[in-house]
Amino acid sequence: TEPTVLIAQIQNQSARLLKQNISLNLVGIANSKQALLNRNGITDSNWRAALAEAQHSPAIETLVEFSHDAQLLNPVVVDCTSSAEISRQYVAYLQKGFHVVTANKKANTDDMDYYRALRHAAKAQHKKFLYETNVGAGLPIIDNLQGLLKAGDKLERFFGILSGSLSYIFGEVHNGLTLSQATLKARELGYTEPNPAEDLNGLDVARKALVIAREAGLELELENIQVEAAVPDDLAQMTQADEFISALEKYDAEFQKIVTAAEAEGKVLRYIAEIDNQNIQVGIQAVAQDHPLYTVQAGENAMVIHSSFYNPVPIVIRGYGAGADVTAAGLFGDLIKTMSVETSL
Amino acid sequence: TEPTVLIAQIQNQSARLLKQNISLNLVGIANSKQALLNRNGITDSNWRAALAEAQHSPAIETLVEFSHDAQLLNPVVVDCTSSAEISRQYVAYLQKGFHVVTANKKANTDDMDYYRALRHAAKAQHKKFLYETNVGAGLPIIDNLQGLLKAGDKLERFFGILSGSLSYIFGEVHNGLTLSQATLKARELGYTEPNPAEDLNGLDVARKALVIAREAGLELELENIQVEAAVPDDLAQMTQADEFISALEKYDAEFQKIVTAAEAEGKVLRYIAEIDNQNIQVGIQAVAQDHPLYTVQAGENAMVIHSSFYNPVPIVIRGYGAGADVTAAGLFGDLIKTMSVETSL
Repeated sequence: TEPTVLIAQIQNQSARLLKQNISLNLVGIANSKQALLNRNGITDSNWRAALAEAQHSPAIETLVEFSHDAQLLNPVVVDCTSSAEISRQYVAYLQKGFHVVTANKKANTDDMDYYRALRHAAKAQHKKFLYETNVGAGLPIIDNLQGLLKAGDKLERFFGILSGSLSYIFGEVHNGLTLSQATLKARELGYTEPNPAEDLNGLDVARKALVIAREAGLELELENIQVEAAVPDDLAQMTQADEFISALEKYDAEFQKIVTAAEAEGKVLRYIAEIDNQNIQVGIQAVAQDHPLYTVQAGENAMVIHSSFYNPVPIVIRGYGAGADVTAAGLFGDLIKTMSVETSL
Repeated sequence: TEPTVLIAQIQNQSARLLKQNISLNLVGIANSKQALLNRNGITDSNWRAALAEAQHSPAIETLVEFSHDAQLLNPVVVDCTSSAEISRQYVAYLQKGFHVVTANKKANTDDMDYYRALRHAAKAQHKKFLYETNVGAGLPIIDNLQGLLKAGDKLERFFGILSGSLSYIFGEVHNGLTLSQATLKARELGYTEPNPAEDLNGLDVARKALVIAREAGLELELENIQVEAAVPDDLAQMTQADEFISALEKYDAEFQKIVTAAEAEGKVLRYIAEIDNQNIQVGIQAVAQDHPLYTVQAGENAMVIHSSFYNPVPIVIRGYGAGADVTAAGLFGDLIKTMSVETSL
């Protein structure tokens, strides 16, 4: 999983980074029940056992007190959960002097008031709030977009494939599997949520599209997005995995008609997020061979940015948009960016 | 040109950036003959007239003295030249407390001793040396590669189209133009050097490939690269534009045979830089429709990174790799990165 890989990356790379004047210390690991805290650094790769026996609470008060007592120079909180409750604590962490690095999309897709409050807190405290992995895992999309917009560029149109699981499933469907077979295969490979309805309902893609749209200045809420699930709504809303999978099997024949119709026109189905003017649309599109997203499959993400500067030819960034290695590397990159030249010594 | 656009970007964006707590002031502009210096900021868009009448020398001693007298908080030198002489001054600038941001590839492709001296100076002075625009203009390649390598990733194989002018010329050749027609058209559009032999000789692409290879830890010199020019060596070495263009016309028929042979196999010619193991190769390749660089033309660059994390599917980044807007935006992004959270207030 991401946290495991990120912890290993920090532990393995710290000696090499020190040669580059970057001192990165892992001083705490928390899950929902407890927190393992060690001011001198958690260097043991077998930290799971220690965490299981840790006595500290993972509550924000405990972590703030620990940071204060340990006089941490430049503390960073890294959130690898998808918890809305934890994302609601970022403002408090920023106000207490932590940088915040997160893979969790909940904060950036909460209401605009909280979105603004976060940026206000980061500014007021001179702390960084970084979330490159919210979209496309380690692919350099947020930082690149922020750089362009700071230089005066404007987003004109965006479209992309933002879900590794849906990228995989739609690829396999055109390799001859039924929708339920492709979904079960993706699930077996660990590419989906435990209940794949949470991938096929499109909400995760909608959140990613909202993160990008807000980056570009659109003041939209999640409910403003037109989300067409990859399956009929009654399936998409099922909360029990077993129930969903048996419903999906019954839907296979109907879905196959859509696949066949697309293929008869030389097209493939892709689950695409699109931002155009003030609109965000998320849903299935049939695209022809000359479309930039035609070849995107096998878990790949792809993001196409048309802007004032990149016009008429867009920037295209593609590669794995999920997976423990690349997501952890994205979080690691954000961690490095929390260090100013001065405090990285 | 890049400096003109970058200056306009700084002047136009400064008010907006200040709202984000970023105070970016343009206090000096220099060309090879003189320097315009104003501690209070050069805000006039008509700075050319003032520069033409400026009395200061552009010598490093003058700029260092100015920075010292003006008590600049976090000075940055931006180099938009391609001068080896200026690139040789970076160590001195870093030692005098400047960050260095550069579009000039000469420093990073100078000998390994100078390459190391630069990084040593930056570390010792806690200053940044940033050069995102050395490869692919504003495309996020260097920063992304550095982030991955810091997280413990390893470059396994790289290939790409790294020249906007060669991308354009090879695209037009397959649109039916002769090599000399395509080259003249690229020249008219301002995509080539005044003497296009400097594009077709492949040396600029070799420099870019060397920047990437060194980033990934290969300790190679420019002379270690196998560079096959896009035209025979006697043409590639011509120093006079007129002479080169008339020689190019005579070469058209022979080149057309290579084009025709490639097309007969369903392939197109692309000028490709490739890094594999300890080798860098730069030259023409005929690629088939399933090759990631088949569709790259019209001045686009494309970079394909195979690494331990991005395996077997690579990261691909593509878009304009040259042009004043996107190159200036890349320099602007680097400028923003010189500011720690603390000093950007």
